[in-house]
Amino acid sequence: MQTQAQTQLQTAAQVQPLVGIIIGSKSDLEVMQGAGEQLESFGVPYELIIASAHRNPERVHQWASQAAGRGMKVLIAAAGKAAHLAGVVAACTPLPVIAVPMKTSDLGGLDSLLSMVQMPTGVPVATVAINGAKNAAILATQILGSGDEHFRQVIEDYKRALSE
Amino acid sequence: MQTQAQTQLQTAAQVQPLVGIIIGSKSDLEVMQGAGEQLESFGVPYELIIASAHRNPERVHQWASQAAGRGMKVLIAAAGKAAHLAGVVAACTPLPVIAVPMKTSDLGGLDSLLSMVQMPTGVPVATVAINGAKNAAILATQILGSGDEHFRQVIEDYKRALSE
Amino acid sequence: MQTQAQTQLQTAAQVQPLVGIIIGSKSDLEVMQGAGEQLESFGVPYELIIASAHRNPERVHQWASQAAGRGMKVLIAAAGKAAHLAGVVAACTPLPVIAVPMKTSDLGGLDSLLSMVQMPTGVPVATVAINGAKNAAILATQILGSGDEHFRQVIEDYKRALSE
Amino acid sequence: MQTQAQTQLQTAAQVQPLVGIIIGSKSDLEVMQGAGEQLESFGVPYELIIASAHRNPERVHQWASQAAGRGMKVLIAAAGKAAHLAGVVAACTPLPVIAVPMKTSDLGGLDSLLSMVQMPTGVPVATVAINGAKNAAILATQILGSGDEHFRQVIEDYKRALSE
Amino acid sequence: MQTQAQTQLQTAAQVQPLVGIIIGSKSDLEVMQGAGEQLESFGVPYELIIASAHRNPERVHQWASQAAGRGMKVLIAAAGKAAHLAGVVAACTPLPVIAVPMKTSDLGGLDSLLSMVQMPTGVPVATVAINGAKNAAILATQILGSGDEHFRQVIEDYKRALSE
Amino acid sequence: MQTQAQTQLQTAAQVQPLVGIIIGSKSDLEVMQGAGEQLESFGVPYELIIASAHRNPERVHQWASQAAGRGMKVLIAAAGKAAHLAGVVAACTPLPVIAVPMKTSDLGGLDSLLSMVQMPTGVPVATVAINGAKNAAILATQILGSGDEHFRQVIEDYKRALSE
Amino acid sequence: MQTQAQTQLQTAAQVQPLVGIIIGSKSDLEVMQGAGEQLESFGVPYELIIASAHRNPERVHQWASQAAGRGMKVLIAAAGKAAHLAGVVAACTPLPVIAVPMKTSDLGGLDSLLSMVQMPTGVPVATVAINGAKNAAILATQILGSGDEHFRQVIEDYKRALSE
Amino acid sequence: MQTQAQTQLQTAAQVQPLVGIIIGSKSDLEVMQGAGEQLESFGVPYELIIASAHRNPERVHQWASQAAGRGMKVLIAAAGKAAHLAGVVAACTPLPVIAVPMKTSDLGGLDSLLSMVQMPTGVPVATVAINGAKNAAILATQILGSGDEHFRQVIEDYKRALSE
Repeated sequence: MQTQAQTQLQTAAQVQPLVGIIIGSKSDLEVMQGAGEQLESFGVPYELIIASAHRNPERVHQWASQAAGRGMKVLIAAAGKAAHLAGVVAACTPLPVIAVPMKTSDLGGLDSLLSMVQMPTGVPVATVAINGAKNAAILATQILGSGDEHFRQVIEDYKRALSE
Repeated sequence: MQTQAQTQLQTAAQVQPLVGIIIGSKSDLEVMQGAGEQLESFGVPYELIIASAHRNPERVHQWASQAAGRGMKVLIAAAGKAAHLAGVVAACTPLPVIAVPMKTSDLGGLDSLLSMVQMPTGVPVATVAINGAKNAAILATQILGSGDEHFRQVIEDYKRALSE
Repeated sequence: MQTQAQTQLQTAAQVQPLVGIIIGSKSDLEVMQGAGEQLESFGVPYELIIASAHRNPERVHQWASQAAGRGMKVLIAAAGKAAHLAGVVAACTPLPVIAVPMKTSDLGGLDSLLSMVQMPTGVPVATVAINGAKNAAILATQILGSGDEHFRQVIEDYKRALSE
Repeated sequence: MQTQAQTQLQTAAQVQPLVGIIIGSKSDLEVMQGAGEQLESFGVPYELIIASAHRNPERVHQWASQAAGRGMKVLIAAAGKAAHLAGVVAACTPLPVIAVPMKTSDLGGLDSLLSMVQMPTGVPVATVAINGAKNAAILATQILGSGDEHFRQVIEDYKRALSE
Repeated sequence: MQTQAQTQLQTAAQVQPLVGIIIGSKSDLEVMQGAGEQLESFGVPYELIIASAHRNPERVHQWASQAAGRGMKVLIAAAGKAAHLAGVVAACTPLPVIAVPMKTSDLGGLDSLLSMVQMPTGVPVATVAINGAKNAAILATQILGSGDEHFRQVIEDYKRALSE
Repeated sequence: MQTQAQTQLQTAAQVQPLVGIIIGSKSDLEVMQGAGEQLESFGVPYELIIASAHRNPERVHQWASQAAGRGMKVLIAAAGKAAHLAGVVAACTPLPVIAVPMKTSDLGGLDSLLSMVQMPTGVPVATVAINGAKNAAILATQILGSGDEHFRQVIEDYKRALSE
Repeated sequence: MQTQAQTQLQTAAQVQPLVGIIIGSKSDLEVMQGAGEQLESFGVPYELIIASAHRNPERVHQWASQAAGRGMKVLIAAAGKAAHLAGVVAACTPLPVIAVPMKTSDLGGLDSLLSMVQMPTGVPVATVAINGAKNAAILATQILGSGDEHFRQVIEDYKRALSE
Repeated sequence: MQTQAQTQLQTAAQVQPLVGIIIGSKSDLEVMQGAGEQLESFGVPYELIIASAHRNPERVHQWASQAAGRGMKVLIAAAGKAAHLAGVVAACTPLPVIAVPMKTSDLGGLDSLLSMVQMPTGVPVATVAINGAKNAAILATQILGSGDEHFRQVIEDYKRALSE
């Protein structure tokens, strides 16, 4: 059964998700589906939830705190404006957290970018380009590939295709 | 008894603190003492703790969640760079939260400012100027004065003195 | 009777407005109605006037100077570009003043934001996000709730609903 | 007799000041003395006061409202951060108002600049460079020269000297 | 007879133009007609030419150098991007020069603004807001009014109407 | 044997380096030693070379192309200004690449940051804060921990210590 | 025969291209055709390829390294976001390299501009305006004209036409 | 004979200068000597004058207009703030003009950079990094090398040395 705030796009029952995507607002879903599609094309099982660091702090903490224990290897957090989601998630997990700053209608995403990338010493997040949903998925797969020969090969194949 | 991470500058045992100041890093203490001194000069009892949204998330949540129940009326949060502290506090309390963006050595505080002021709909923080410690204290007292004739008078006296 | 420059959207004759909204230009009205609607949904009586710090300085001063005496508890000022309105209002009242920087067509609202948030020591304003009309209303209600149990409860109910 | 807040640097009793300089804070005095010295070297009588749009609104309004009647021809306003002074002065006078944005320690003066130059339609100010005290004096003299052959000649001599 | 590059919108044969408007590109004409209309409504005779500091340097120099001798009192220069026009004009005339930075499609006009306002010591220009065509006209009339009672009255009437 | 341009700070002969640090200029070495020290404190073997994407393109390509084959798991690239190093490295390796934008003396590091984080689709880099050397090391270890229980534990211990 | 990634717009078989244009992404082609058209109108033979510094590093290196030997005199590189293409090309050739920063949808091209213009000492690129395709072609022809009387004349004719 | 404003650092009587350096203010001389030293090390004869586009417009025009006729092949213009010098020079010569934006004490040189690089269509300048004096000299030599085998070789030698 699924709660209202949660949209579990993929994650077939039997497959262990390796990447967890959390996005701060339904309005970011369209851009972030690019991350999901890229992961699917790489054969990386993932789950995706929508939860705001400000509106659903309990939910975010719970999800982030349990992610490693549930077998996930990398997290992706996407948010806009004063984008605290990636930092809040990173504070609760030993996993690497990738941050996707969303483009904003007033400052173009400079606010989201600085809110994510300028993390204080001790709690880094791995920031990609503004609206860089696909790149977040590629980076997540590179991280998986860092410790897993299969995903290393997936990335090498992808890069070869890219250059042709 | 006091934990290491906590510096309870003021708050005599018998006085109920009305304002709670939380700062994200010891390095911000020097600037933020300006807030404490201003509150003292206004006769506003306050407490001050040092805790990072990223390094001590549990501690921040606990403090913010209990602040209203402990009788505080306004909170002040000061942090720099990807400054999530005010937003994280605001997510856990019904009290008004004042944000003080700290000046940074690389971007001058533009990063701290945008990380604080651009809060998403539903969870505002009241942002003052970069390094605006004294102004945070004045604003906190104005908020107290909004519902308390005594502090209203304190502010009126202050403004009269200011203009002379 | 009402002057041309004044649009008194709400404020039934018998109800004491607790929040005063002042906006610098008719063109900001559409965005700022979000503040009015939010206050209405919270049951907060308010009044709204349109007056420019530059074109109607006398009117702004009169309104701001009398607001506290007329029983208002919090003021909200919205303006764009070289947005002086909040600062000008704050200079004339002991009440807390919330500033809403309006998005601008050329610089995205960075000009409005810096013109509001960077107030000099002694006269703070509580700045929210660019075009953050709803957040200004929520913050105003939080300030009311700081000294009034009823509005505290309103905010707690709102935050509970938000997280669901 | 002189009030505390007022520093009347020049203005010998018998000379009618043609230019009025108003600066928002004592800390801006050092830079702005460059304007006074330049005016003196041009033989332009001026007066200089220190008054803040936010701390001394009444004083600023009175000075600005009376400037034209007292025989002044051009006003110069210098302020930093959320620099409203020039706009507030311009709202109260038919005289041309020159704005000098002061350099700030965090944002370099970009805040002062945008707070001054982006004035809304109807109430312009003539903005010069960040910390451009001397240029404000030159521009003021050019404005005097626009309607007075003597000061036109002063500027022509100055420009000739400049190019040598 | 008129050259192709020149568009003499107004300036009936017998009327001495008091304000000269120079714009750097035909594409700026639409915005800058706001300046012409405002001057007309004030009864200020003006002339308007289109000439680029970069493409027609000779023409710009000739026009700027002769403007004072031809009886003009104030010049307005409008340009975009690396907007040198106002500075180039100011280098060739003792008259006060008002700069209108044009909005740009990539950087919103921040480039035009900084290229105009940050003039070096010795050669000021009076910069108004991005796309501030009307304000340039009002400022020009204020400058005329600085030395001419009639235009002083025109501005006072305008400001009175504005505040109603 | 070592070439002049190469400074192999650590990497005892028998230990396989897991992280490779490449820095674009000797002047960045002081800041980046923070990354080396953090890795050492985590017990992560690493190597560090100095090579510029612009001055030593061959050397950079060779190092980046061979890094995976030589057994490294994560790369860290630090550079300033038009900081292409991380992107150039990422183009030549399937490994995850962490980018450290160096603070610059003129634009504070905004140039370095944008040059690194805004990578085009297909070739992400994981950007940390300006001068974020220690955070790069922590993130690298988190990435190692993503596929290796030992380093997962190292990070968990570090985070526990951090919060105390 | 032509590879997929290569679009050889012009370059008739017998004509030696003097200018080589490389663009980082098909999406930049529309803007950059302005450069091609300008070169054609000047009678400057050129070739144009599409290759990304990040997706096709080998191809970029090969093209850049061989350009001088193949008789080209000037190179033009156009790219957006973290725009490394010009720098990567400049690292591999003794020829002067002109950089065209492409406008971006989020930051307006400020990212592309800083990524190109802020090259470190030793490897300059000649940066023109954001989307300045035509200007890149004019500058390339000026460079040709620096050593070739014919192209000097072409530019002089162009400038004369421009000023009329 | 030499005027006061002119500093002819090099240019032995019999040597034809190939590069002309013009700098807008004496205060930029220290940085720009880096360009002169680099040219000397390459054996490129040059001349250097100090003249401001705003204070000495006639002198700048004369120098720029005659540069090509006097046998120079490339010009370098360095200026700060509203840096018009390169554009003004480019408007008067068919030669390629390299622009060096000087670092400024308030905005770090962003003002100089945008004032130079954002040139309108028709009159490009080749902008290098903020304070990029040495790179301007290298680029000038690359341009000479584009049409002269000797300087091509000089650059190739320089690049080879650089990579070692």
